[in-house]
Amino acid sequence: INVKDDKGLQELLHDVHHADIAEILDEVNGDEATYLVRLLDSEQTSEAIMELDEDVREKLLDQLTPLEIAGEIEEMDTDDAVDMIAELDDDIQRAVIDQIEDEEHKADIREMLQYDENSAGGLMAKELVRVKETWTVAGCVREMRRQAEEVTRVHSVYVVNKNDELIGRLSLKDLLTSTTTTKISEIYIPKVDFVNVNDPAEDVAKLMQKYDLEAVPVVDENKRLLGRITIDDIVDFIKDEADKDYQMAAGISQDVDTEDSILTLTRARLPWLFLGLLGGVGAAAIMGGFEEVLQNHVILLLFTPLIAAMAGNVGVQSSAIIVQGLANDDVKGSIGNRLLKEMLLAMLNGAALAIVLFFFVWVSEGAVNYAASISISLFVVIIVAGIIGTFIPLFLHKRGIDPAIATGPFITTSNDIFGILIYLYIAKLILGI
Amino acid sequence: INVKDDKGLQELLHDVHHADIAEILDEVNGDEATYLVRLLDSEQTSEAIMELDEDVREKLLDQLTPLEIAGEIEEMDTDDAVDMIAELDDDIQRAVIDQIEDEEHKADIREMLQYDENSAGGLMAKELVRVKETWTVAGCVREMRRQAEEVTRVHSVYVVNKNDELIGRLSLKDLLTSTTTTKISEIYIPKVDFVNVNDPAEDVAKLMQKYDLEAVPVVDENKRLLGRITIDDIVDFIKDEADKDYQMAAGISQDVDTEDSILTLTRARLPWLFLGLLGGVGAAAIMGGFEEVLQNHVILLLFTPLIAAMAGNVGVQSSAIIVQGLANDDVKGSIGNRLLKEMLLAMLNGAALAIVLFFFVWVSEGAVNYAASISISLFVVIIVAGIIGTFIPLFLHKRGIDPAIATGPFITTSNDIFGILIYLYIAKLILGI
Repeated sequence: INVKDDKGLQELLHDVHHADIAEILDEVNGDEATYLVRLLDSEQTSEAIMELDEDVREKLLDQLTPLEIAGEIEEMDTDDAVDMIAELDDDIQRAVIDQIEDEEHKADIREMLQYDENSAGGLMAKELVRVKETWTVAGCVREMRRQAEEVTRVHSVYVVNKNDELIGRLSLKDLLTSTTTTKISEIYIPKVDFVNVNDPAEDVAKLMQKYDLEAVPVVDENKRLLGRITIDDIVDFIKDEADKDYQMAAGISQDVDTEDSILTLTRARLPWLFLGLLGGVGAAAIMGGFEEVLQNHVILLLFTPLIAAMAGNVGVQSSAIIVQGLANDDVKGSIGNRLLKEMLLAMLNGAALAIVLFFFVWVSEGAVNYAASISISLFVVIIVAGIIGTFIPLFLHKRGIDPAIATGPFITTSNDIFGILIYLYIAKLILGI
Repeated sequence: INVKDDKGLQELLHDVHHADIAEILDEVNGDEATYLVRLLDSEQTSEAIMELDEDVREKLLDQLTPLEIAGEIEEMDTDDAVDMIAELDDDIQRAVIDQIEDEEHKADIREMLQYDENSAGGLMAKELVRVKETWTVAGCVREMRRQAEEVTRVHSVYVVNKNDELIGRLSLKDLLTSTTTTKISEIYIPKVDFVNVNDPAEDVAKLMQKYDLEAVPVVDENKRLLGRITIDDIVDFIKDEADKDYQMAAGISQDVDTEDSILTLTRARLPWLFLGLLGGVGAAAIMGGFEEVLQNHVILLLFTPLIAAMAGNVGVQSSAIIVQGLANDDVKGSIGNRLLKEMLLAMLNGAALAIVLFFFVWVSEGAVNYAASISISLFVVIIVAGIIGTFIPLFLHKRGIDPAIATGPFITTSNDIFGILIYLYIAKLILGI
């Protein structure tokens, strides 16, 4: 790159896979990346650009003219093209779309920009092989060859009627084994899974996983065939969702990674830490209210971090199981049953832990009344923490809010406060102070 | 089911998808499920059985004879068959394998049982379409028809030489567009991604994701074609890994779900809670060591839960980002650089939080020296927690241990203790006590 040996580089990178070119673009600096994208064929770079991280891609596209971006887009499948265009500013978006030469591609992209990013429409691509039921096998193979030039990989062949409504699919096996004059209407399979263009992406992912589909056709309200979604887009979607839930549970609010700038990472982390700070201040205020009691019973104070930590741990466990169960659609039964089960579970765990703690405090401090009050509080706190950890995500889910926000810092912080409050009340009660 | 109307049930369920039959099997009781499996065609039930949760399947298989299980296995692809057999006890395993009629299927299953479950060999299936380079297109199509009967879906057609070594793949497009007398050697694509049978499953998943592959051939050390892995198995693998990491971060040690029994859930959760209890007892012991100091400065004790919680939160954030980065292979640069970055980040967050806390304590308690010592400790604790949260997963990863175990309760507990220790030392220093 340094000596700008255009020819040499072109030859060197000619056979390199686009995913590897993406890695090269990621590692060189901005000017070098722009130089490479301009030098290489759009056919090679367009897919590489889609593999880049969003922030790297943004920087790269800032350097290119709308005409150059349009050139890259011409080579992309509609779904990738739309994803990329959606990231651009409004006025650049318009300029880029105007520069696209292929009128059909342009119309497809305009149509697809209307769909919600998290719906089936936002995931689908327009490229697919469609055949009419009235065709013969020979005509169909001819048509497929023509259409297949635009489609990177043939997943399924969809059969439509004269109104362009999806009526079935064609198996390649049947196509290979039929005589050339057979009518498509005689050999197509009328049973075909499909999704509506407005279905949420999550439902599409679940359907494709459940039935092990590799591609699924997308239709509008009138069952007209609009596009198809392939499993590789769903793999990316599943991975992204899992990453987001994981980060949410750890108290990180945006989709960040280790290579992001310190400022971006701070923005993603600081709000949750402030929540924790608020919780801590709240806990301090509560304890301050018991100050007189505590001054004479400092031993109680020694165990507040333990109580708070256990309340947090139990809460996180309970909420994580529920959040995951909700995501996988296997939470059955009523909220009441669910809470009852969690309560039994917490009682079992709580009893085991409380007994251990009782003997520890008794032996180390030699005071049965303290040992009893601390361990009984722990038992109650664990039950309450388990119930809160179960109830909040279920409640949010019922309200249509993503229950994943209830995990991590949110549960930990609220359980810290509840835990300490319960602890001090019970101690006061038992010790009679 | 109750009236045992065999005929009616058979007709009713005849067109139902196996994933839906699995749901029915999951919801009825054990005897009813056994009855259904015996009643319905193995072709339908075998795939449904594979969709069941492991524990439900185990109960069901206990009710069936080896001969009945073998009947189900005859209908399965080799990868599913092996997964199911691997779950059985050793002696039942042998009995079932002996009952399999199809000798080729039996040999394949015996071979595949040798591979590690988490390797490419453990994920692959033997069913694939292979053609020899010396064949013509016509011969190839004929062979494909025959082989395709055993293969549920044709993903790719692999080309081998006379030693059965993988030399390339065939695109269906090229096959459709070539004359019947063309030799395969003239039209096959020699560039083909493949994996070795001993490659870890994780690497296979990464490769398939990176290059958006839908199927990948598996070869042995001599490049002989052994089988193929399809993307739907990888989707399941990715989902399982994500679920496992998520649970690990929440302090749940086995792969459990909401529907598991209370005892199973307790086994998965209690060990981590004991770890937390140990940490809490440790924290109490440390604070006990400072008891004299604390007795005269109870205000310091009010903020121990805050310090512990913040140390935990920061630690979880840092470790989650690193663990996720390691899983996605995008942690670049040395450990030193990584720690430096985390330190800068923690300083930024820590300064913001410490300033807020300083003013809060100053205003509410009216004591500048307390406010200063508490907020300065918070600042230091946040930096140390960030460094610990970054260092531990990186260290474990270097040692070849799954860094995911370092998230959740492990980091929270150790950071609680370190946090409180640092807090009390700094307070003592600043207040000169």
